[in-house]
Amino acid sequence: MDVYAYFEEQIPKVNRVLDEVIPAADTEPAQLHAAMRHILFPGGKRLRPVLAIAAAEAVGSPGERALPLAAAVELVHTYSLLHDDLPCMDDDDERRGVPSVHVAFGEAVAVLAGDALLASAFEVLAKGAPDLEPDRVVAASLELSRAAGSLALVGGQVEDLVFDASDTNAERIEQVHARKSAALIAASIVGGALLGGADSETVAGLKRCGVAAGIAFQIADDVLDEGEDDPCSLVRALGVDAARERAEKLLTSALVELEDLGEKAEPLRELVRFSVRRTV
Amino acid sequence: MDVYAYFEEQIPKVNRVLDEVIPAADTEPAQLHAAMRHILFPGGKRLRPVLAIAAAEAVGSPGERALPLAAAVELVHTYSLLHDDLPCMDDDDERRGVPSVHVAFGEAVAVLAGDALLASAFEVLAKGAPDLEPDRVVAASLELSRAAGSLALVGGQVEDLVFDASDTNAERIEQVHARKSAALIAASIVGGALLGGADSETVAGLKRCGVAAGIAFQIADDVLDEGEDDPCSLVRALGVDAARERAEKLLTSALVELEDLGEKAEPLRELVRFSVRRTV
Repeated sequence: MDVYAYFEEQIPKVNRVLDEVIPAADTEPAQLHAAMRHILFPGGKRLRPVLAIAAAEAVGSPGERALPLAAAVELVHTYSLLHDDLPCMDDDDERRGVPSVHVAFGEAVAVLAGDALLASAFEVLAKGAPDLEPDRVVAASLELSRAAGSLALVGGQVEDLVFDASDTNAERIEQVHARKSAALIAASIVGGALLGGADSETVAGLKRCGVAAGIAFQIADDVLDEGEDDPCSLVRALGVDAARERAEKLLTSALVELEDLGEKAEPLRELVRFSVRRTV
Repeated sequence: MDVYAYFEEQIPKVNRVLDEVIPAADTEPAQLHAAMRHILFPGGKRLRPVLAIAAAEAVGSPGERALPLAAAVELVHTYSLLHDDLPCMDDDDERRGVPSVHVAFGEAVAVLAGDALLASAFEVLAKGAPDLEPDRVVAASLELSRAAGSLALVGGQVEDLVFDASDTNAERIEQVHARKSAALIAASIVGGALLGGADSETVAGLKRCGVAAGIAFQIADDVLDEGEDDPCSLVRALGVDAARERAEKLLTSALVELEDLGEKAEPLRELVRFSVRRTV
């Protein structure tokens, strides 16, 4: 199973849904839509939406059923990057080699473009797809809203902003990762499985898988960055070897949760491995 | 029918739902939750949630069925005020007589508290209520996400920010009002009616009612402010008498849409009148 080929197959489907939900760059107010599209396209790895699709397949559904949730998690991820770049947050002038949104469009439009991306996540999910059961859409929407909220993504961003650089407690660092990164990765997997029709026991296992994989993903990120700048990093706290070891341990526990799902979960397994062992 | 008594009866129910969905002010990260609660309580008039409840009653349902949507529209309204106050937007140091969130908690926490309030709107709606049909929740969520999005609330904020002070075209001013104010007011009424079980014809009429009432509400706001500062104001463009006249005309067309709904729509009628003729 070639994980890169899987990405290449799924990404255009995700991009098509994203392109449909965000108005064209010349739709008024044009600078707002241009700003939203500036950060959304071409975008990054699209890991979260592809995880959502693979999770639907892992529970025996066509991956396409997960597309509304796949697009939604990418929109939440993208809004969070946009607001993270703002002068009052990380104050990053560039993202993926191009000017960040506030540099290109001004700070007010940047705040508002992030807001609109977050709203559009729930729009694309509520629009759903013709064959989706409404109760599945509501369950996925609840997962997504919690993953984006004050006890998860946003809460983790606040904790990251105020993290004490002298704190090397691995548990506290992983708690921030769990909120800031892992909650949305878990919601991608859980949400994809919910739209794919998974039963509650399978959903619970996939949630544990997603949280472990999400924390390991963040550790891998810090290893790739060599823990630069970020006071909240396991690499800074434990050194690169111990951080890698911890990520591998988390990866093992994430994969255990996928053992009973058989051959159809192979893309999800490969994506989980990729998210921890990637070099990009 | 005493509209103030109706507010007094409904507001505690709305506040109870809001209080349940937002973690306590000492829940970690405590400054985030304190910031969210700082602007949410005691809050303002709670017009939008009370409109949602009255709309459910107007279509023959207990008002309580609309509570998840009522809380959700108040959360969207509150997040938009919070972000509107930011230094890069209107740069308001006070809101309702107390320091605005960025003054009290810093700019980064203010941006993030707004983000979390927006996410929590979709959380409280997806949590729903035991007797709500999932397809009704999905329909209300779609209305809300569109009302909050780039073609409505956020789009109107961008248009308001860049509005040319020399432009006195009433139609263009009302177009901004339609997006910035009326879309969320219409979504309050429509969403409440959807959760109340309204058929699609009734929903369409309530939408027209909500848009007209929402534009008139914004004109009334500008009359109360005497059009101060805001370049996008019908009062500034036409003078206070013509603006009042236009608001009354819109009010009439809003009330026409409620004619067939009988006695049970009386609270909604009174609220629509109040929203245009209020002196607060």
